[in-house]
Amino acid sequence: MITIVLLGAGNVAKHLYEAFLPLNLVKVIQCYNRKGIPIHENQEEVFVTDNLQNLKKADLYILAISDDAIVEVSDQLPFQNRLVVHTSGSVPMKFMNDKNIRGVFYPLQTFSATKEVDFTSIPFCIESEEENELMLLKNVASQLSKKVYEISSDQRNILHVAAVFVNNFTNYLFSLGNDICKENDVPFEILHPLIQETANKITEMNPDNAQTGPGIRNDIQTINRHLKLLNNDSQKQLYTALTEAIQIKYGKKL
Amino acid sequence: MITIVLLGAGNVAKHLYEAFLPLNLVKVIQCYNRKGIPIHENQEEVFVTDNLQNLKKADLYILAISDDAIVEVSDQLPFQNRLVVHTSGSVPMKFMNDKNIRGVFYPLQTFSATKEVDFTSIPFCIESEEENELMLLKNVASQLSKKVYEISSDQRNILHVAAVFVNNFTNYLFSLGNDICKENDVPFEILHPLIQETANKITEMNPDNAQTGPGIRNDIQTINRHLKLLNNDSQKQLYTALTEAIQIKYGKKL
Repeated sequence: MITIVLLGAGNVAKHLYEAFLPLNLVKVIQCYNRKGIPIHENQEEVFVTDNLQNLKKADLYILAISDDAIVEVSDQLPFQNRLVVHTSGSVPMKFMNDKNIRGVFYPLQTFSATKEVDFTSIPFCIESEEENELMLLKNVASQLSKKVYEISSDQRNILHVAAVFVNNFTNYLFSLGNDICKENDVPFEILHPLIQETANKITEMNPDNAQTGPGIRNDIQTINRHLKLLNNDSQKQLYTALTEAIQIKYGKKL
Repeated sequence: MITIVLLGAGNVAKHLYEAFLPLNLVKVIQCYNRKGIPIHENQEEVFVTDNLQNLKKADLYILAISDDAIVEVSDQLPFQNRLVVHTSGSVPMKFMNDKNIRGVFYPLQTFSATKEVDFTSIPFCIESEEENELMLLKNVASQLSKKVYEISSDQRNILHVAAVFVNNFTNYLFSLGNDICKENDVPFEILHPLIQETANKITEMNPDNAQTGPGIRNDIQTINRHLKLLNNDSQKQLYTALTEAIQIKYGKKL
């Protein structure tokens, strides 16, 4: 049995705790958070501490805490030579204090408080400075998910910037679609199936082959008509910037 | 029984033909395309014509043809006072020749040749200049899909520009994510579940509430680190433009 101490009380900590609960070979033996409050409705208070000095001995310490707090908490841990990992997409492994054996246990997904999480399809990006510890992380991650990847801190950095494009910026485009519909009394839900299919397509074909629209067709008439319909400068500028970027990227095909 | 003549041989025509096949109350009695070739493996040649003069009498003529051809074909139809609709997101209904009763039968989805289509969840945007014909279109659309919307040509225009944001531009962001991963030997598939979840989230919450990332947090350090990682001016410019747009839109919340 692999024993875990889980630090943090945010969405990642809560969802991880819940995912570990049914497992037989992995057990969360203690949680830590600054308020010392249970992070699950069935968790007894005796298994939660607000004092790092009271942390139990475990095979693995998971810092599921905000990026800003990782270095500080890793410094404050009152032990050494144990396996300590964080769950962040952007903090390099080596930023943590080297008195412990460092690693990363990063579930690449967007989590919200209210939505249930099915970890089996969530990619885990793991990293460790020692081979044995990497195997242990792989073992733990494999019990939650079918998709486990060994990813260096540099590669994780790249994934993080790519994720900004495919998640943050994409969601922003959805918000503009929503605004445009709302301003014109058209229900945005009409676009939901198109959005689903746009996301589904890239699991089956390269997004370069899925690119369509007035930009790649260089359909100037439609582009101008669309720009006239938009009644907000920020929307117009972004429409132009994205259309130009599409034309730069696929220009040779035109 | 409602009889249909289906014009066109592209993805929309083929998928519509297939979707009509199992229906009892609606029947495609003839197809037209310039080459006079069957658009389905089980279709007999006798039901296909390459000559508009040979079109049979039917309750409904569906022009599932390219935007550019709609006006011309509607002019060339050798009959009048029949119900003629197109399937385009961007061509106004009244562009068609008014010798016939005009309408629109627009399935709002992105179609590809190879991928099977489940019409039951695809929104149909219908429009007609006469009330009886609108009811007939609603009847036909309802047999294919649970989602049928009466949408004016002006509203359809708005949907079309919103669709450019949530489909064309979104796919372009996916293609950049793919490029960034490829240039750095990271498998893009690691991001597929994040992309799926990004699209799923907006069916349950307003995209304004789902917005996250360094832009909305005004996390200058991460933004600058990301800009350094990007090795292509077009990617850098778009990262900056989208980050600024997010900050303009949500600025008041910062």
